[in-house]
Order: sequence, then structure tokens, then C-alpha cells
Amino acid sequence: MESDVILGVDMGGTTISAGLVTLTGEIVAQVEAPTREAGPGSAPATLLHLIARLLTQARADGRRVLGIGAGVPGAVDAARGVVGTDVPNIPELAGRSLATELRSAAALPAFIDNDVNVLALAEWRFGASRGANSLVMLAVGTGVGGGIILNGRLVRGVSGYGGELGHVPINFDGRPCFCGGRGCLKTYVSGPDIAAEARQRVKGQKDSLLLTLAGGDPEGITAVLVFRAAAEGDQLAAALVHEVCQALGAGIAVAVNGLNPEVVVISGGVAQSLKPLEAAILRWAGRYAFAKALAGTRITIMPLDKRASVLGGAALFLYETERG
Amino acid sequence: MESDVILGVDMGGTTISAGLVTLTGEIVAQVEAPTREAGPGSAPATLLHLIARLLTQARADGRRVLGIGAGVPGAVDAARGVVGTDVPNIPELAGRSLATELRSAAALPAFIDNDVNVLALAEWRFGASRGANSLVMLAVGTGVGGGIILNGRLVRGVSGYGGELGHVPINFDGRPCFCGGRGCLKTYVSGPDIAAEARQRVKGQKDSLLLTLAGGDPEGITAVLVFRAAAEGDQLAAALVHEVCQALGAGIAVAVNGLNPEVVVISGGVAQSLKPLEAAILRWAGRYAFAKALAGTRITIMPLDKRASVLGGAALFLYETERG
Repeated sequence: MESDVILGVDMGGTTISAGLVTLTGEIVAQVEAPTREAGPGSAPATLLHLIARLLTQARADGRRVLGIGAGVPGAVDAARGVVGTDVPNIPELAGRSLATELRSAAALPAFIDNDVNVLALAEWRFGASRGANSLVMLAVGTGVGGGIILNGRLVRGVSGYGGELGHVPINFDGRPCFCGGRGCLKTYVSGPDIAAEARQRVKGQKDSLLLTLAGGDPEGITAVLVFRAAAEGDQLAAALVHEVCQALGAGIAVAVNGLNPEVVVISGGVAQSLKPLEAAILRWAGRYAFAKALAGTRITIMPLDKRASVLGGAALFLYETERG
Repeated sequence: MESDVILGVDMGGTTISAGLVTLTGEIVAQVEAPTREAGPGSAPATLLHLIARLLTQARADGRRVLGIGAGVPGAVDAARGVVGTDVPNIPELAGRSLATELRSAAALPAFIDNDVNVLALAEWRFGASRGANSLVMLAVGTGVGGGIILNGRLVRGVSGYGGELGHVPINFDGRPCFCGGRGCLKTYVSGPDIAAEARQRVKGQKDSLLLTLAGGDPEGITAVLVFRAAAEGDQLAAALVHEVCQALGAGIAVAVNGLNPEVVVISGGVAQSLKPLEAAILRWAGRYAFAKALAGTRITIMPLDKRASVLGGAALFLYETERG
């Protein structure tokens, strides 16, 4: 029915967002709250509060809520609706049967999945890549996550790690990663990694535009400033951004040569800074990927839209309830 | 019926094999011929001849042949049954509508796909990984190919390049590859690449066990000799084999962190030499992959069985005709 909606949720490390989404992807109501609004450990309570507010509003608007879909960080056991054990930003979620809790609290069917998986579903269901048979979403932000849809199905993996493209090694003797690996894609392209590398390199430099932009304090350097300094001609920053483009090109090639999907979307918090570099990134991807494989794949850099995560929850609900 | 069989074909660069395979994966007849038996450009004629022989035999044995499945090198447009344009070892196949040709010649339904894709299907349908929801096959030989099954479906890719795991970059500033890329997995682990690297490094060396094994001529060095020399204590060979294990570990990690499949199988012509190194390879995989992702994935090194490719053709036929 036209008045039917889905309650889409995004459990972010900073903000919890929730919204009412129509079956065609229109957000008719949206609410949010800081994840730690009520102190440490309070995220589930805050979430339930936001959900209650939206259910009240739906009733007032005469809308039927079909169910709930939520994106959460980390590896998720989507089949059982259980959050993984590594959720550094929202530790109170670790190992929780969140889908069951939502189902009980709201008396509605509820599903959860990894936040980048639902971002991929949002793009695939409601975005420009609607109807693609295959899509790889690479979310480059504080971390680097991936969401993979192939043959119309999410690739969740046997332990919930499907799509962790931020941790494929693209430089096997490269930078150490917090995950224990080496040369993970993330160590070259995530916001904090770009900033950390710049801080390291700027040491002992004088007349650094980057340092000036950061107020003279290396600790003030952020990825955004690195991209800005590079655009304004700072050589150190430009060299670093060059490497970011190279690494991202290699990461794209992993997806293109390995999976040859119809669509690769680069999104996440860093995507805004990457957008002006699209041509350079695609040149690098072309350096590493088969020309014919690349020719079949549409690659887009799509700055993160705040609504996408809420749409993702809704897309997850539709994905879970509509397939055979 | 018990007497039903499928005609499975493998179009190799050296040998064309074909066999009659029961629905449970028993090979009841097998024939083969050199790919160039009747001179350059003769592979399709040789193939049709082998097929005719098997059809005659099936008739004599009172077996009904349900159809034909064939594995061919390179990227394949499986939906249209057309061979790709890059088939260096059997150039006469390039761009051919081979499935249609087989269908016409034998008056039977016929399907073709990439040779490593059908190897993955063989293992998934008839092998130890029967019934796995997801499987990644990595065939390490003269080249390095991959076959990926996820959610019970082959990942063919939009241009037929799905599963080309030999050409994912694992070292973005690494060795140049014939494909135009850099640091492709293949450049570290394929037989010819191992041999070429050893020839390079052995230059100017005296007292080299490897060189002695090769009859004193660097051109006599093969990958098999490199593995043997390493096992017998040759330091140069051991260092090179160490790198092979590292690169393969990184390649496995690409599959495990990216897709987190139930099974990863390493096969192909080099697998026999890799089998004794399984522990070292898995240690490297553990260095690069998430422990929890790896814990869910079963990794096997499986020396190539000559029958596997014929089984693959049969598995392809079943895959194409049984799914909804």
C-alpha cells in the first residue's frame, strides 16, 4: 500500500539515525540522536527510544510500518541477527541478539546487517544502480568497509566477514594494520591513516603549507587538510594523495578483476575529497585491472549522503522479506 | 536414470580431454588428444572428433547422453556460449560461438565456461566440498586462474572476468605482469614466473644446487626444480619459495577477507609442489586475514587430478540445467 513504510536504522559510532522509508525509497520522517546521548552503554536504549518515536509518528500519520532493518558496525551474523564481537565504537552492542530485541520491543519483523552491506543494498535498491546484477560498495571513511552484491545476492561470508575489502592486502610488505595484517587497503586510504602518514612525513619540514593549514601543529592535520593542501600545490601532500589514488586504484582492481561487477561505488566520509580525483583514481584502476573487465564495470565516486544509511536499513528489510 | 551420462570436455592448451560422466560424478569413459594433433587451427575439429567417438561409445553401452559441458581457457561469455578474444594457447577458439557449434554438431544441449570456473564447479558438485554454499578455487599453474561460487552461484562477472584472482594486485609497486598490471598474484606464484625469477637470481652464482639440478644451465630451471632445491637446502631457492608462500598467503587473504567463503581450494599444476608447504602458506594467510574470517574458511591444497577438468564440464552442464 502507498502508506506502507519501513523503519530503517543506522547505528553509527557517533550518531544513531532512524527513519520511515516508503517502498520506493522516500524518507517521510527521520530522527537521530548521539550514540552516547545517555552515557556509555546507552546505545540500545537510545535506539529503542528513536524507534518508539517513529512508530508513534507513523500511527499519527496513518502509516503502516512493515518492519525494521538496521545497519550496525562490524561483522554481523545476519542469519541469526546477532552483532559481532568486535564493535569498538559501540561496545555495548557486541554479541547482542539485536534483531530479536528489536522484534520484541516493536512487535515487528526486524533484520540487522553490517553497515556497509546495507549501504550497498540502499544503492542497489533505491540508487542509481537500481537493478544491477552485481555491485561492490567501498566505503572509505574512518575505516574502510565493503558491501558486495553478486548475482542479486549479498555476499555475507561464512563468518560474517564477506566484503571486508578494506583488509585485502594490496601491498604484501606494506604498512602494518591494526587488524594484524600488512598492506591492507585501509592503511593507505582511510581518513585517519592518511592523516597519520602526513603527520609522520611533515616532521622536520618547514614552509609546509599543510602544516600552516593545520595551524602549525602536526596534530591538527586531518585527511581533509591533506587533500586541500595537495590541491593547493603542497608537494608532500600531493605525493601522499598520489599514493592514495594508486592504492584505491589497486583496491578497485581487486574488485574488478576478482569479481567483474556491473558497478563499483566508492562512498564513505572520504569520498567527498576523492571526487575531484576521480580521473586519477580511474587511471590507476586501469593500470591494474584488465581493460575489458574494467570496460564492463561502471565506477562511481559518490559522496556519502546522510540519508543513505537509513535507506539501507529499509533496503535490508525488503531484501530479506522479498527474496524467495 | 542410472545409465544417463553427461559429456564433459576440457579444452586445454596442450591436450583436449573428454569423458562420459554419470550424474554422481563417475567417469565411465575418457578420451584425449593433443590440441594441435591435426596442426594449427585444428582444435575444434579434434574436439568434434572426440565427441563423436564418445557418442558412439555411449550408444554402444546403452547410455543416454544428456548434453555437453566444456571448459575453455580465458574469459568466456557463458550466457551466449562464446569464447573470449584472448586465448593465446588455442587462438582458433577466439570469439567462437562454441556452445552453438557443439549443440549443432551433437544435437544436444551444450554449455561452455572458463576452465577454472568449471574446475570450481567440479569440486563443488562432485568433490570434498560438495554442497558448500561458497567456494573459491585458485588454480596455480602456467597461469593463475580463479573460480568463485557464492550463495550457490558462479561469479562470472559482467564481461566474463569474474574470478580472475591471478590478476588481483597484492603488491601495488611489485613485478610487472603481462596483463599490464603490477604485482599481480600470478607474477609471484605461477610456474613460469617462479622459474623466471630463479633464473634471474641465479646469475653469477656459483655452487648453486639449483643450477646443478638444472644441469648447469639457467635455462633448465623450472618451478619444480626450484621447489626441490629449496627442500634440499638451497638458500636462493628457499628464499624464493618463501616469497611464493607469502604471496599465496596474501592471495588467500584477499579471498578470505573479501568473500569469507566456506572453502578455498588451491589446485593447478603447481599445487603438487605447494602441498608440502601447506603449513607455511596457511601461516602467511593467517598473517594477512582476519582470524575469525579464516576460522570459518576451510583451506585445502589439492594437487590437480587429470579427471577434474572432464568432471568440470559435466558439473557445468548440471549447474546450467538444474538451477531455477
